Amino acid sequence: LIDPVPRAGETARSRGLWDRYRRRLWVDPELGLSLDLSRIGGEDDTIDHVQPAMSSAVSSAMSSAIRAMADLEAGAIANVDEHRMVGHYWLRAPALAPTPELAASIDRSVESVRSFAVGVHTGAVRGAHGRFEHVIHVGIGGSALGPQLVCDALRGVHDPVRVHFLDNADPDGIDRLIRPLTGVLGRTLVSVVSKSGWTPTPWFGMLELQARYEQLGLPFPRHAVATTMEGTALDARAAEEGWIARFPLWDWVGGGTSVTSAVGLLPAALQGVPVDAFLQGAAAMDRLTRVPDPLANPAALLALAWHRAGNGRGDRDMVVLPYSDRLALFARYVQQLVMESVGKKLDRSGARVDQGLTTYGGKGCTDQHAYMQQLRDGPDNVFLTFLQVAEDRRGPSIEIQPDVTLGDWLFGNLEGSRNALYERGRQSITITLPHLSASSLGAVIALYERAVGLYAELVDLNAYHQPGVDKDAGVPVVDLQRAVLAHLRTTRSPQTAEEVADALGRPAATETVYKLLVRLAADDTRGVSATRHDAGFDARFQLRELVPASRDHVDARDA
Amino acid sequence: LIDPVPRAGETARSRGLWDRYRRRLWVDPELGLSLDLSRIGGEDDTIDHVQPAMSSAVSSAMSSAIRAMADLEAGAIANVDEHRMVGHYWLRAPALAPTPELAASIDRSVESVRSFAVGVHTGAVRGAHGRFEHVIHVGIGGSALGPQLVCDALRGVHDPVRVHFLDNADPDGIDRLIRPLTGVLGRTLVSVVSKSGWTPTPWFGMLELQARYEQLGLPFPRHAVATTMEGTALDARAAEEGWIARFPLWDWVGGGTSVTSAVGLLPAALQGVPVDAFLQGAAAMDRLTRVPDPLANPAALLALAWHRAGNGRGDRDMVVLPYSDRLALFARYVQQLVMESVGKKLDRSGARVDQGLTTYGGKGCTDQHAYMQQLRDGPDNVFLTFLQVAEDRRGPSIEIQPDVTLGDWLFGNLEGSRNALYERGRQSITITLPHLSASSLGAVIALYERAVGLYAELVDLNAYHQPGVDKDAGVPVVDLQRAVLAHLRTTRSPQTAEEVADALGRPAATETVYKLLVRLAADDTRGVSATRHDAGFDARFQLRELVPASRDHVDARDA
Repeated sequence: LIDPVPRAGETARSRGLWDRYRRRLWVDPELGLSLDLSRIGGEDDTIDHVQPAMSSAVSSAMSSAIRAMADLEAGAIANVDEHRMVGHYWLRAPALAPTPELAASIDRSVESVRSFAVGVHTGAVRGAHGRFEHVIHVGIGGSALGPQLVCDALRGVHDPVRVHFLDNADPDGIDRLIRPLTGVLGRTLVSVVSKSGWTPTPWFGMLELQARYEQLGLPFPRHAVATTMEGTALDARAAEEGWIARFPLWDWVGGGTSVTSAVGLLPAALQGVPVDAFLQGAAAMDRLTRVPDPLANPAALLALAWHRAGNGRGDRDMVVLPYSDRLALFARYVQQLVMESVGKKLDRSGARVDQGLTTYGGKGCTDQHAYMQQLRDGPDNVFLTFLQVAEDRRGPSIEIQPDVTLGDWLFGNLEGSRNALYERGRQSITITLPHLSASSLGAVIALYERAVGLYAELVDLNAYHQPGVDKDAGVPVVDLQRAVLAHLRTTRSPQTAEEVADALGRPAATETVYKLLVRLAADDTRGVSATRHDAGFDARFQLRELVPASRDHVDARDA
Repeated sequence: LIDPVPRAGETARSRGLWDRYRRRLWVDPELGLSLDLSRIGGEDDTIDHVQPAMSSAVSSAMSSAIRAMADLEAGAIANVDEHRMVGHYWLRAPALAPTPELAASIDRSVESVRSFAVGVHTGAVRGAHGRFEHVIHVGIGGSALGPQLVCDALRGVHDPVRVHFLDNADPDGIDRLIRPLTGVLGRTLVSVVSKSGWTPTPWFGMLELQARYEQLGLPFPRHAVATTMEGTALDARAAEEGWIARFPLWDWVGGGTSVTSAVGLLPAALQGVPVDAFLQGAAAMDRLTRVPDPLANPAALLALAWHRAGNGRGDRDMVVLPYSDRLALFARYVQQLVMESVGKKLDRSGARVDQGLTTYGGKGCTDQHAYMQQLRDGPDNVFLTFLQVAEDRRGPSIEIQPDVTLGDWLFGNLEGSRNALYERGRQSITITLPHLSASSLGAVIALYERAVGLYAELVDLNAYHQPGVDKDAGVPVVDLQRAVLAHLRTTRSPQTAEEVADALGRPAATETVYKLLVRLAADDTRGVSATRHDAGFDARFQLRELVPASRDHVDARDA
């Protein structure tokens, strides 16, 4: 048993860490939130808001980053590639939006979410079979993770509706989601979220759900709402089919930072989360993270800690460990936010930098019993973020040992692990929330949004585009599948994969053609048969009969 | 839009990848499982089972590793630190166990799980209020992750019981788990799993649950079963209190590889999973991974791929991406298995090696919209494992585009991402299961168990101990808390954290003492008050009244 609290020969001198903790703890008394950077870097380190020994280069870069963030909030074109503003901070402070029209449209969107939720809760807005009890949120990436985090963190037994998430293109996953809801689909609302209005995966998910409603004789439009930019394919479809409601998005809201837009507010409000408190928590943090002095600005401090721990190059992975079951999705949320903002080949001047900040995690103390082995005993390639919720439960606790509650044990694990890891040279950040609420969750989300923006500024990256996120990664493959099927329709002679690929003029695609043929032959309904049961590499494939192209498909692009 | 399937100037020469795919695809026709290593390393690489250009050093090391694994299966003391055998492979092939007694005890344990599940399903074994409809599995680390994976992957609407997991020490998490079950606790079985019988976190979770049952007037022992080694504190408690049943564990089963013991079999069987098929799938893979020729052994091939991609030092992170909602926990499972086996400071000779193989992931195609940005565009510090389930759903699919189903789109995303990543120099492994079943899940779990063992052999690590997993990380902190409270009981004068720490002779622990005092003062029920409302660093703390040490605690170590 390692005792992380040294005993032998303890002297007043061994108060070094206590001094450092006091000097490096940032606290906001109003939010009750604190940020402890005492276990980042060395004793005379760059992050020290009492004795700023911060290197002047990093310090002045961070001051510039904060100024750049102010320009961004004033409506500068921060995302130059896509020539758009970056305005997620306006969502909780509409008065800061660059035009009064924009401010009014934000206000209207929040009001429309609020009043829609009231309508659902009172039953004024209802499905074919009555008051909505379930919501299926259809979205992917940032359009799913933020809402999933908020709904999971703030879920309660008395919520007016239960929110489910369709965040993938897995047919079995859809079946698994829908099957238990079959009897209540007439009391289930489908909320389709797609900023561009034509991201294939949520679109296709919508088609699957629509087919399911229709099979049950339920009018899908009476059970559907859309959240998308004005004038998109999704917007048009919802308008034409007369969906219950449409909620706006704007080009200046990125997917990864959309949780304080209707994307996150709608499912939260439907579940009964007080969205005003959520927005107020975020707004309060936004005010704190606009402070020009980096050493008094928690987002700047957080970004500086990442910079210090990873040498500004992501040399160490960031492991995020909330000690709270309700925050089990927080690490995934931060993972997406950080890695899609910071994982970039080129900096803003176009120089190749191959930047990244690998982020993963889970929850404590659970994960102490899993990968923590490597974090403690393996290479020094990580730093940790402990996220603590001070109020460990509402109501009294039993004693599980004399003078010790389960919450004490949970805290003991956090503090003990932090200390033991530090003894082994592992740096860490500790963030403490007073309790888990809509407000504190809004605040910590806003903290990370700003920290990521500042870190990207510091290392000169455009945080707001994702050239590597390929929403259409499947398109060349399904296009090839269509070509393969079209070819098989023109011939009755059995063909090998190589012959088909050659016939299509795509010899380099033979591997994919082969896999497609095997897939098609394995499914009785596709009309493709293979000459060998095990579909070996030399198997020949043909159509069992000349099947005409199906006409009862729903072509998404027609919408 | 990047087209991952090259078109311009395609010639027969561009069949290189097709040739490589055919040469490097390992397939087992019986299991229908395949392992594709064609996108690992270069063209003339070490892993090539048709033209073995494998470096002789790695090749002979792997042959030795397979021989060492045979010794291990024969009962050698593989875990020398803890002087114990490593026998999880015997769990699905009891005839291989080193003694007939051991074989018989394995057989009996599987039979006892099977017959217990029948008893629960028929209602012969029942709670105070009737047939068991819910199970709360209490365990942490390997005792939770494997069962969580199996139960989540194979969950269905008609399952006889629903299994919940208590895998943390979060009081709010327990409340959140229990609250919806309050009305049905008399039909809820608690299954406590702790190999050592005294891992604090599950023990304390058990105490919390027991208190809840008793508050409701329900006899806890009539609702509880234990899975632990013979003679442990948990075993004794279950015996004394007359719990419904006890299931055995043995010292030769490690937590991370316990899923084919009663740890995993019991919740699976209760949920209605055919555990025989699960064991048979694992046993079939075990036979395939005993093949002495590394190039014909899928676990050896997988381990060689990890070795190649990470240069035998974990230089690249392993990102695990099952394209299946049901396998959403697979990455976490592999993360624990790999990182606790391979994340080691010392090799078996005691030399400092600082080994690790960082593993993280989630699910596809969802995560293409998240951290994939960094994997594609950021540093070349990852390799991927795509896990495909060939049967994408049971039953027919609608067309979401002409000639395209949602399953085609899912496959298109996997294949398209794999190809696009390869174009950018990212290596990958692709594993294909024919369908998701108890059998195929058993097989893929057994594949990873063996691959981890072989990889550890290859880099000369003891995979079977976890010196860095500190189950008692919280102990020094709660001990300190008890000392702090004891001290406050001896004095009526308000004390600062520094004064308390000095009085305890623990000045270096001042930071932790301060946090403990703040925690205690924040909770009305603890009797500690602070002289300043905001509990600043100089706050003074005292007991509001002289509260005697509580007597109604349940002391776990007394059990």
